[in-house]
Amino acid sequence: MKTVSENRCFGGTQGVYSHSSAATNCEMTFGLFLPEEAQHFTVPVLWYLSGLTCTHENAMTKAGAQAWAAEHGIAVVFPDTSPRGDGVADDDAYDLGKGAGFYVNATQTPWASHFRMWDYIADDLPALLGEHFALDMDRQAITGHSMGGHGALTLAMSLPERFTSVSAFAPIAHPTASDWGRKQLGAYLGSDETTWAKHDATLLMREVGFDGPVLIDQGASDQFLELLKPEALSEAMAAKRQDGVFRMQKGYDHSYFFVSSFMEDHMNFHAEYLFA
Amino acid sequence: MKTVSENRCFGGTQGVYSHSSAATNCEMTFGLFLPEEAQHFTVPVLWYLSGLTCTHENAMTKAGAQAWAAEHGIAVVFPDTSPRGDGVADDDAYDLGKGAGFYVNATQTPWASHFRMWDYIADDLPALLGEHFALDMDRQAITGHSMGGHGALTLAMSLPERFTSVSAFAPIAHPTASDWGRKQLGAYLGSDETTWAKHDATLLMREVGFDGPVLIDQGASDQFLELLKPEALSEAMAAKRQDGVFRMQKGYDHSYFFVSSFMEDHMNFHAEYLFA
Repeated sequence: MKTVSENRCFGGTQGVYSHSSAATNCEMTFGLFLPEEAQHFTVPVLWYLSGLTCTHENAMTKAGAQAWAAEHGIAVVFPDTSPRGDGVADDDAYDLGKGAGFYVNATQTPWASHFRMWDYIADDLPALLGEHFALDMDRQAITGHSMGGHGALTLAMSLPERFTSVSAFAPIAHPTASDWGRKQLGAYLGSDETTWAKHDATLLMREVGFDGPVLIDQGASDQFLELLKPEALSEAMAAKRQDGVFRMQKGYDHSYFFVSSFMEDHMNFHAEYLFA
Repeated sequence: MKTVSENRCFGGTQGVYSHSSAATNCEMTFGLFLPEEAQHFTVPVLWYLSGLTCTHENAMTKAGAQAWAAEHGIAVVFPDTSPRGDGVADDDAYDLGKGAGFYVNATQTPWASHFRMWDYIADDLPALLGEHFALDMDRQAITGHSMGGHGALTLAMSLPERFTSVSAFAPIAHPTASDWGRKQLGAYLGSDETTWAKHDATLLMREVGFDGPVLIDQGASDQFLELLKPEALSEAMAAKRQDGVFRMQKGYDHSYFFVSSFMEDHMNFHAEYLFA
């Protein structure tokens, strides 16, 4: 593991690190905010999964998470959204290939050799974090924005007891029924749609739900509402009697101005369960 | 004036607007955060002047000001750092020309026709803001980072009674004695150094001081300490018996991670006097 940069931030450290990943078979970069408490003992960790076109950096600099993470003494990890590098397949579209890993393990050419972001987030990066940093990997929570909200919800529901709590900002809620989903799941997983179901938060919610509390924020003026399909997830949560809250936020759009506006609420939400 | 974008943010609106400026003789773009209160009555305004290479956008997305501005009901204006456009002179160096206006009125070719950022911030933009937005222009405060800290301090000391309070993050504190200053003041104002003095916060502090409270934060691990020369300003503040606080922050560098870490303190500081 290499240290790319470390900046003092809210009494702790905002670091950027790179490492060779067995899951994605390439060099990966991630951000990690460690609160001051991590100098003295292990701290719980919140995963923040980012959306289409983002790297590890966008949320790290624009979501305003560190202020509230420092207040609670929680670490925040900001992974990249896809494999990177010259040898990694890509597509001209912004929503396929680099920056658009969709948190799945691709099975199709040309994606299968590197696009294994599910394994990267579920296994590879947690092992590295637990080994190198003062993190209590028995206390993890997860959140994300847009494609990252999709990733957070699908990982949380598929890995029982891994995360104490899950939240999402404007998640891609029903990708098997959306152009943000059908294109990518088809490219990465192939045309057999039965392999897509475990990567759809609404279908997973209907089927299994989450073994903890859920918080969803969605902007009512989001320019991508037709692609995100929040109503499908909201309906599924209610029908499943899922312990959780779905909030439609009047006037907010899809930007980081929306995310940062509600970051304190999400951090407070996760802190309640991480420190329970 | 044209609306470039408006995003709902912390209950208010983060807007970006452009307008034709008589001062800089070109189209200028600025960011303006209006808290929710501005829908009902006029609110006080904090100016945030940015540093070298920045546009209106950097601090608007990375400094974390909106959270605390919303809490207090204060507007924040984020001006650009130089004139822009095809017809505007530039230099290959990052620290001269576009993105490096240095908050002066240039008198030398090729800069004099557009590089009049002093007049833009002191006269042109305030007039526009007062006309178009629910701002109480009798209650203004000013802050800035690096070159913007230099701008905030020099404007505040040169315009008595304009600002209730001034603060700065890692300001260029003594530009007439630094490579961050001598190069730019020479290029924009010419070789007669007597014209430089009113653009040096340390010299102004020695001479006139500020007619209100001052707050300065400086990272002790700032990579540009030799260029910023904080000790000169700190000495001048103490010698002038200036009402103010100079804080050396252990471990912090020159980045927005430093700025955002102390933004709450600066907003609380200005709020105390804006609402006195």
